[in-house]
Amino acid sequence: MTDAAKLRALMASSPFHDFLGLELLDLDPAGPSVTLGAKWRPGFERELGSKQWHGGVLAAVIDIAGAYAAFAKTGRGLPTVDLRIDYMRPAIDTDLRAEAKALRTGRTLGTVDVALRDKNGAIVAAGRGTYFTQTVSA
Amino acid sequence: MTDAAKLRALMASSPFHDFLGLELLDLDPAGPSVTLGAKWRPGFERELGSKQWHGGVLAAVIDIAGAYAAFAKTGRGLPTVDLRIDYMRPAIDTDLRAEAKALRTGRTLGTVDVALRDKNGAIVAAGRGTYFTQTVSA
Amino acid sequence: MTDAAKLRALMASSPFHDFLGLELLDLDPAGPSVTLGAKWRPGFERELGSKQWHGGVLAAVIDIAGAYAAFAKTGRGLPTVDLRIDYMRPAIDTDLRAEAKALRTGRTLGTVDVALRDKNGAIVAAGRGTYFTQTVSA
Amino acid sequence: MTDAAKLRALMASSPFHDFLGLELLDLDPAGPSVTLGAKWRPGFERELGSKQWHGGVLAAVIDIAGAYAAFAKTGRGLPTVDLRIDYMRPAIDTDLRAEAKALRTGRTLGTVDVALRDKNGAIVAAGRGTYFTQTVSA
Repeated sequence: MTDAAKLRALMASSPFHDFLGLELLDLDPAGPSVTLGAKWRPGFERELGSKQWHGGVLAAVIDIAGAYAAFAKTGRGLPTVDLRIDYMRPAIDTDLRAEAKALRTGRTLGTVDVALRDKNGAIVAAGRGTYFTQTVSA
Repeated sequence: MTDAAKLRALMASSPFHDFLGLELLDLDPAGPSVTLGAKWRPGFERELGSKQWHGGVLAAVIDIAGAYAAFAKTGRGLPTVDLRIDYMRPAIDTDLRAEAKALRTGRTLGTVDVALRDKNGAIVAAGRGTYFTQTVSA
Repeated sequence: MTDAAKLRALMASSPFHDFLGLELLDLDPAGPSVTLGAKWRPGFERELGSKQWHGGVLAAVIDIAGAYAAFAKTGRGLPTVDLRIDYMRPAIDTDLRAEAKALRTGRTLGTVDVALRDKNGAIVAAGRGTYFTQTVSA
Repeated sequence: MTDAAKLRALMASSPFHDFLGLELLDLDPAGPSVTLGAKWRPGFERELGSKQWHGGVLAAVIDIAGAYAAFAKTGRGLPTVDLRIDYMRPAIDTDLRAEAKALRTGRTLGTVDVALRDKNGAIVAAGRGTYFTQTVSA
């Protein structure tokens, strides 16, 4: 089974991922990097009728994309140590694309950058996370 | 209408909040601070059968609690500028309590600390966010 | 040699700490927590004649206090993984006090909160850092 | 006076910048972006004889480079709201280069990315900061 197939299986096994309905668009172990697609759903709405993505949903998509870039390197699903998100502009009535690329992956930890873009390619939110890359407990 | 009633109405108007099923336990304009309750649901699960909260859901609950502490001061729902989360321990088979307290609220920005605790009071994740407290666009 | 004596020796061995002129006011292995004093010096000035601490100096003091709270637990000087700082108000014509307390120390990583206070006790900047608590390389 | 000349004058007016000995290598208002050079000095040392840059000095260089990218847009020196730094690898016996580029500059706030690189071009630390771009107090 390829890494992409393993990751799709991992994604399918999570009830919360199922709610988010994410799609794996690209996985590159050499980056390591991952690109996810996230389609707009009314359940993600900040205020009823606004068609604006709730910031908490954006945070979740960023966390997942970052973890998968670490996965692209290690082939295992590993926990987030910490996560930081800068919100740039509202995401309204748009599908999203999360581009996650590791700045560095070490023996214990990896640091990943995530750019969340709207349908026009503009950055909606920028994330940076630290992820475990080993399996010992923290 | 009291601020707590206004905030409950605001919470009820968001489809994503509805998914999260948050409950307002306390609002103190003097803090300003807010405490939310979040009940465990299978839809929040990281891996099927694990009963572990997905980190993305934790991020969303922290973002919302922080925004509401800013609301407790201003009486308005205002956007997140940036958000940082440190994951401390897995939250498994537990309801959660999010305690948000502003470190500072200025004319333009506020900084809020959020402690997310499990049913035993242990910190599951610690958040810190910067929120707008004025209504001009960023 | 007590941990406080070991830490004072560690502080004395660093040329940059010497520039900062920090003083160890308290070390509590049970926290673990550490309090440092930082006396105002003209060399820390943001703009000539402003008597305002440069934000970069505040960042350095916060980083060091956080690392020492991890030291208070482990008895060793260990590297910073990442650091976040929220600037609350200008620190002008004042000595400072850095109070660092670990939120959690695990086998691999620790998370530390640092409150930097002016002579009136007001928070000038709030820091949070992740530090290694084991000796393996990252 | 060009923006680069104004920025050099601003840099020269700060006693702490004088300690750091930073050099402006590039300023591009269109980015907006700024590149600074930082030459190794024994006073920056973490431990005596290690030739390793202290993480607190790296934090200061990143803060300054980020603020100057905001300056490259506005022509004014404006305060840091918050700052985050991920330490990637030790910087030992090397000069440094700080490349700061705004991800976004709005009417009130700007978000800036800073890559701190050693003499081989490897990333030593990655920073991201939020800076005021207006002159009202926070």
